[in-house]
Amino acid sequence: MDTQKVSGRFPKVGDESGLAPADRFYREEVQLANRNRGMPLEGLRYPVTPAGMHYLLIHFDIPYVDAGQWRLEIGGLVNNPLTLTLDDIMKRPAVSIPVTMECAGNGRALLDPRPVSQPWLLEAISTAEWTGTPLRGILKEAGLRDEAIEILFTGLDRGVQGEEVQYYERSLNVQDATREEVLLAYAMNGRPLEPQHGYPLRLLVPGWYGMTNVKWLHSINAIAETFQGYQMTGSYRYSHSADDSGDPVSLIRVRSLMVPPGIPDFVTRIRLMEAGEVTLMGRAWAGLLRVARVEISTDGGEIWSEASLAEPVSPYAWREWTYNWKAQTGRYILCVRATDSEGTVQPMAQHWSHQGMGNNITQRVDVIVE
Amino acid sequence: MDTQKVSGRFPKVGDESGLAPADRFYREEVQLANRNRGMPLEGLRYPVTPAGMHYLLIHFDIPYVDAGQWRLEIGGLVNNPLTLTLDDIMKRPAVSIPVTMECAGNGRALLDPRPVSQPWLLEAISTAEWTGTPLRGILKEAGLRDEAIEILFTGLDRGVQGEEVQYYERSLNVQDATREEVLLAYAMNGRPLEPQHGYPLRLLVPGWYGMTNVKWLHSINAIAETFQGYQMTGSYRYSHSADDSGDPVSLIRVRSLMVPPGIPDFVTRIRLMEAGEVTLMGRAWAGLLRVARVEISTDGGEIWSEASLAEPVSPYAWREWTYNWKAQTGRYILCVRATDSEGTVQPMAQHWSHQGMGNNITQRVDVIVE
Repeated sequence: MDTQKVSGRFPKVGDESGLAPADRFYREEVQLANRNRGMPLEGLRYPVTPAGMHYLLIHFDIPYVDAGQWRLEIGGLVNNPLTLTLDDIMKRPAVSIPVTMECAGNGRALLDPRPVSQPWLLEAISTAEWTGTPLRGILKEAGLRDEAIEILFTGLDRGVQGEEVQYYERSLNVQDATREEVLLAYAMNGRPLEPQHGYPLRLLVPGWYGMTNVKWLHSINAIAETFQGYQMTGSYRYSHSADDSGDPVSLIRVRSLMVPPGIPDFVTRIRLMEAGEVTLMGRAWAGLLRVARVEISTDGGEIWSEASLAEPVSPYAWREWTYNWKAQTGRYILCVRATDSEGTVQPMAQHWSHQGMGNNITQRVDVIVE
Repeated sequence: MDTQKVSGRFPKVGDESGLAPADRFYREEVQLANRNRGMPLEGLRYPVTPAGMHYLLIHFDIPYVDAGQWRLEIGGLVNNPLTLTLDDIMKRPAVSIPVTMECAGNGRALLDPRPVSQPWLLEAISTAEWTGTPLRGILKEAGLRDEAIEILFTGLDRGVQGEEVQYYERSLNVQDATREEVLLAYAMNGRPLEPQHGYPLRLLVPGWYGMTNVKWLHSINAIAETFQGYQMTGSYRYSHSADDSGDPVSLIRVRSLMVPPGIPDFVTRIRLMEAGEVTLMGRAWAGLLRVARVEISTDGGEIWSEASLAEPVSPYAWREWTYNWKAQTGRYILCVRATDSEGTVQPMAQHWSHQGMGNNITQRVDVIVE
């Protein structure tokens, strides 16, 4: 196929015939997509995503932090409030865990109708090896009091959302916050965090969607009530409408993705490949659950075949799947879907919600085999 | 402003009243914006951009390269064709240079009408310290022959563009290719290239737009004619229409950008700040020319004031500018424009071209001061 002309195989984008208005995006969505960053799906080849390829969703601006001046404040309902430097934190017991992280909004731009926010298709997913100290050790040292029911995490990033000026902050109940795998993380893939990943310190809560992992951590407060801030009550909800408060978004839902086979057309990303045997591969994950099964369809989801599964990269990370496909000349919609250890299967139809959260719809990859 | 409600300050996106169809974007543009990556403009604070924050434009897929198997082939019109391993290249004389790189399509999505491609607003800009060996040393060793008029650089990334199956490849004339600052680069900010930046080796041509810096370099061939491949003749042209071949895109045009002051609204990115004195800052660059002057306007470009300039980070990198602004309550359109050492000033009106190349229009930042 080296110098081949492939006229007419790929639609010309810009021809508006038949295009529904809802298929067009707002300038503000594009502005967010240029700032934030997905992992190109060929990045699924790496068991641990190269740091600079890791997806990013940043609500406000990336704060410019002088780590020498920076302190972590631990207060609220504790007997011994603490003020810690980065060195103090790095001297504590350290744990490294590969963790698969996904944005709760992954799949949003596939929804119909489409909520306006960061317009992720399927690329807001990555795995990194995070190093930090268990939060529960720090909370123990601070002397968490019995009246505390939640831990509130506040970042240094500040902006306006829902017409409210705010620092980015989220809470966890004490039980979730004191699980052994919850870390205060200061390194990613063996190197200090880069600014865009939360330098100098971020929260890491394996199995939860990305919004939980508060970056540029500034303070941790034990509180006696359920935190009512915007990022808990106004956003990250599975709601049916603007008037519905809905349920909170929490753990990552089961999903699988594939590395699109063959080569891409630049604008449409439709794939072109040669007929013959090819090993399809990708990764699957399910939050705190296990992935029980991954299936492949080459006909848009009519007939499914079992993929082979490798061991997970860690208890909190994705597992590789592979499938040998004898590709014959033709046009195909390849699909991959996973089933979690509780029997939940990724749907073929969208999981619609008003804010576009947790849409783990099955991936579809358009492939021309020649 | 900590818990302030700011109702009505920021437009609600999704209200279609008055929105021109040309202001809406195609799904394919969003797909590209999610894959590629701009540098959030607060990243202008760093003289050298953190590696994971550097902008990326990737035409096809990021190749998965085994550096142990990888070889660089140097051939064509040379007396001693070479096959080099990465170790061979790293043993040669090494140079490190901070270089400002910009995508030729930066500013494309600000054009009206808008060409359909990667929809950059203004964020396709970064500076990294690249380390490599001068290309001219390698060409000398290979014994470049007198008949050679161009050097052709071929990457491992392959796909379809302009309905043509191709490896990404670009050429330079011998004079440009043998300038002392042209490197075969294997490190970025002191670390091996990450896959998305061209691992294991890329071309680096300071002062030229990004498309020149061929990633995942696989072969270098000296040729006796002007290379007519798609990325030279079909793309990266300053053309007026689909039928106009236009002039080739080459050196980076003068541009300046600012770190948007204050804090952002999440969806619109309109800025909110408190009245008082603030130091505006940013960076300016001009390809192989110097930046002679940077000016600021706080009224959308009517009245201009001189900014202060620091020394360039290197002869091939941007220079910082600062400007003290006494911000009073009101609504402002902040602008910044630079003038290069040949007297060319950034325009207030767009530089339109059919492919959306080199649009160095003056930045406008919408700010509410309260």
